Amino acid sequence: MTSRRAELVAVGSELLEPWRTDSNGSYLSRRLGEIGVALRFRTIVGDVLEDLRDVFRVALGRSDLIVVTGGLGPTIDDLTREALASLLDLPRELDEAIARRIEERFGRHGLPMPPQNRRQAMVPRGAVALPNRVGTAPGLLLRAGGALVALLPGVPSEMRTMVEEQLLPRLGPTGERFVYRVLKIAGLPESEVDRRLEAVARGAGEVAWTILAAPGQVEIHLRERVAEGRPAAGIERLEREIETVLREDLFGRDDEALESVVGELLKRRGATLGIAESLTGGAIGARITRVPGASRYFKGSVVCYSDEGKVDLLGVRRETLAAHSAVSPEAAREMADGVCARLGATWGLAATGYAGPEGGGPDKPPGTVCLALSGPPASRARTLSVPGDRDTVRTRTVQSALDLLRRALLETVP
Amino acid sequence: MTSRRAELVAVGSELLEPWRTDSNGSYLSRRLGEIGVALRFRTIVGDVLEDLRDVFRVALGRSDLIVVTGGLGPTIDDLTREALASLLDLPRELDEAIARRIEERFGRHGLPMPPQNRRQAMVPRGAVALPNRVGTAPGLLLRAGGALVALLPGVPSEMRTMVEEQLLPRLGPTGERFVYRVLKIAGLPESEVDRRLEAVARGAGEVAWTILAAPGQVEIHLRERVAEGRPAAGIERLEREIETVLREDLFGRDDEALESVVGELLKRRGATLGIAESLTGGAIGARITRVPGASRYFKGSVVCYSDEGKVDLLGVRRETLAAHSAVSPEAAREMADGVCARLGATWGLAATGYAGPEGGGPDKPPGTVCLALSGPPASRARTLSVPGDRDTVRTRTVQSALDLLRRALLETVP
Repeated sequence: MTSRRAELVAVGSELLEPWRTDSNGSYLSRRLGEIGVALRFRTIVGDVLEDLRDVFRVALGRSDLIVVTGGLGPTIDDLTREALASLLDLPRELDEAIARRIEERFGRHGLPMPPQNRRQAMVPRGAVALPNRVGTAPGLLLRAGGALVALLPGVPSEMRTMVEEQLLPRLGPTGERFVYRVLKIAGLPESEVDRRLEAVARGAGEVAWTILAAPGQVEIHLRERVAEGRPAAGIERLEREIETVLREDLFGRDDEALESVVGELLKRRGATLGIAESLTGGAIGARITRVPGASRYFKGSVVCYSDEGKVDLLGVRRETLAAHSAVSPEAAREMADGVCARLGATWGLAATGYAGPEGGGPDKPPGTVCLALSGPPASRARTLSVPGDRDTVRTRTVQSALDLLRRALLETVP
Repeated sequence: MTSRRAELVAVGSELLEPWRTDSNGSYLSRRLGEIGVALRFRTIVGDVLEDLRDVFRVALGRSDLIVVTGGLGPTIDDLTREALASLLDLPRELDEAIARRIEERFGRHGLPMPPQNRRQAMVPRGAVALPNRVGTAPGLLLRAGGALVALLPGVPSEMRTMVEEQLLPRLGPTGERFVYRVLKIAGLPESEVDRRLEAVARGAGEVAWTILAAPGQVEIHLRERVAEGRPAAGIERLEREIETVLREDLFGRDDEALESVVGELLKRRGATLGIAESLTGGAIGARITRVPGASRYFKGSVVCYSDEGKVDLLGVRRETLAAHSAVSPEAAREMADGVCARLGATWGLAATGYAGPEGGGPDKPPGTVCLALSGPPASRARTLSVPGDRDTVRTRTVQSALDLLRRALLETVP
C-alpha cells in the first residue's frame, strides 16, 4: 500500500449540527500519519442518499484511500453501505458469517437479533467484511478502480478497535512514517515564542511545524516524514535548537503537563506542597491532583473566598488586609506562609486576585492577580495583569502559579 | 435569499493535522441555522491550489450558498482567493479602498504595510470586498452561476465579526429560522433518559433532537424549523412533555450549568456553602466559583489529601478514620460537618474517595466515592461506584456532589 492521496468522510446528519463535532478525524489523521499517509481532504455529510453518493463519487475521482466513518448501523437512516453499493452498481449479498456473529452478540445478552440488524450483514459483492469486536456494525473494505475504500463504524471505540486490529495491518507498510513531537512552553506569550524561534525557523525545511497558543501555554507541534526504520533526525536537531533558544521556558514534551512536571520535581526533591487559593476557587489543587500518586507530595489546600476565611484559616493578619487589601503581594505572601505552616509543607503557593467581571477599583481592574510562594530558598511574590474573561483569567492564573513553583523548584538542588 | 443547499469549506493544511480542529464550523452551523439555512456538507482542505480548485468546483456544482473560511492571509500559502478566481476565470484587480484600509491599520500601529499584504487587496472582478474591522484580511462575496460564495477569514474573532456585521445582513430573511434548545439532566444515566423519553419520542415529528452524554450530565438538543415570526410551538410542547417525564432530574436549559443553578438556589434561600474535598483536589470549589458573584454564597473550601489534614483542618475524629477509613460515609459526614462549622456555612458538602488508578483494597476499588451533605434539614451521605478513568471519576464526582446539593436545596423552602 503506497496510498498518498487519502481522504476522510464522516457520515451523520448530527455532525452537521452546531452541537456535534467529528471526534474521529484527529485520531485517524494521527494514526494514518504514523504509517506515512497524509490527508488531503476531510468531508462531513448527512444521512442523505443523494449527498452520500455525491461525496463518494467525488472522493473516488481524486483519492487512493478513502476512510469513511458512520452510517453503518441497522436503521433506515444508515445509508453508507447502500450509497456506495448503488454508486458502484454492486449487488449486496448476505454474509452468513457476519449475520451469525451479530446474532451471537445479541444471544450473549439473551436477546433475539432484531430483523433490521440483518441489514448490517449485507455486503456489496467483492467487499471484505471487517468483524466488529466491540459492537454490532461490521466494517467493509472494498477496492473500486484504483482506490481502497474502508467503511468503519462511527462510534469512536468501535472505529478505533477496527482501525488498530483490521485496517492498519491491511494497509501494510508504506516505507515511510510521520513522527510527531509536541514541545510545551509556559511563561511566554506566543509573540515572544515566535520572535525567539525566528533564527531556528529558517533552517527547518523538512519538518512541518506550527505554534498553538492556549491560555498560559504555548505549544510547538512538529511533524517529520521519515523513511521506515530511520530516526526522526530533523525533529531531534530542531528540538535541540529550540531547547537552546527557550531553555527553562520549555517545560515539557508530548503528554507532559505542567502539573506532572511540577509533581516530578517535588518528588525528586522530597518536598511537599500546600496551596492557598482565592480567585481560582480550588482549580490549582484540582490540577495538581490530576496526577496519579499526587498524595506523595500534595498536602492539601485552603480556598478562602472571603477576608474572614483568610484570617481564620490561614492566619493572614487583619492589619495586612486593612492596609493593602486581600489582593496585594502582602496578603498573598501571608497566605503562602500560612498554608505552609498549617499544613507542614515544604512549599506554600498562594493566589489571590480579581477574576472579573468585577475588579477592585480603578488601580486594581479585573485580571489583577497576586501570586506568592513560600519555600526553602526565600519567599517571592509577583503581581500580574492577566487579560481575558473570567474563565481565561482563572486558567492563566493556575498556569502562572504552577509555573512560578516550577521555576523555583528548578533553582533548588535536587 | 432562499438558499437551501449550503455548505462550508474550511481552508488550511493545519486543519488536516491531528492537533487541530476546525472551530468555526459549529458557530457557522448555528448562525446559519438561526436564519433557516441547513448545511449539507462540510469540507476541510489544505492550502494546495489544485485541491482548493477541486473543492470549489464540486461545491459550485451542488450548492447555492458556499461559506469558505481561511486562506485569505498575505502569505503565498494563502490561496483561497487565487483558487476561486482562476477556477472562475476572473481577473483580479487591486481594490484601492481595501489597500488603503490595510495601510491605515498598519499605520495605527506605527508600521509601514509589508508589500505582501497588498495581495489581500486583490479582488476578483465582480466580487464585493467585505471590510475586516478586527484584522487585515478582508472577506469577499461573489456570485458564481446560481451560487453565492462568501470568503471569510479563518481567525475565529475576525470571521465572527464579519458574519454578524456583513454576511448575515446581506443574506437577508429566508422566511424561516431554526430555533435551538438544550435541556440538561443530572443524576440519570443516558440509557435511563432514553427509556423515560420513549413515550415522548413517538410524538415528536417536526422537531429534530438528539441525546448527548457527558460525564455526569445528559443533554437533549432540540431544533425546530419555524416560519419567521412564529413561535417554536413544537419545542415548547416537547419541552413541557419532557419536564413532566423527567421532573427534578432536569436541572437547566441552554447556557445554565449545574454550578449556576446551585448558586441561584443558594442565593434565593439566603444560604451559604463550605466544601471539604479529597479526591477532587479542589475541583468542586473551582466549579462553584466559575459563576460571577459566587462570593455571595461561597465561603470557601478545604482540600485535605491526607488523614492528618482531615483531622487537623476539619476536625474529623481519628477513631472514625481508624474504624471506617477516610473513604467511608462516616468520614464524609464528619468532613461535611467540620467544614460547615469551621467556615460558619449553612451547608457543608464533602467528597472523599479513590479516583484511581489505585483503590482502597478489594471492597473499595477505584471509583468508590462517598459524598456527604451537612445542612438545615438533616445530614445525608451516599456511597457511589463511579465508572471511568481518574479524570472521569473526578468529573463525575464533582457533578454528583453539586447535584446532591441541588436536590437538597430544592427540598428546602425558599
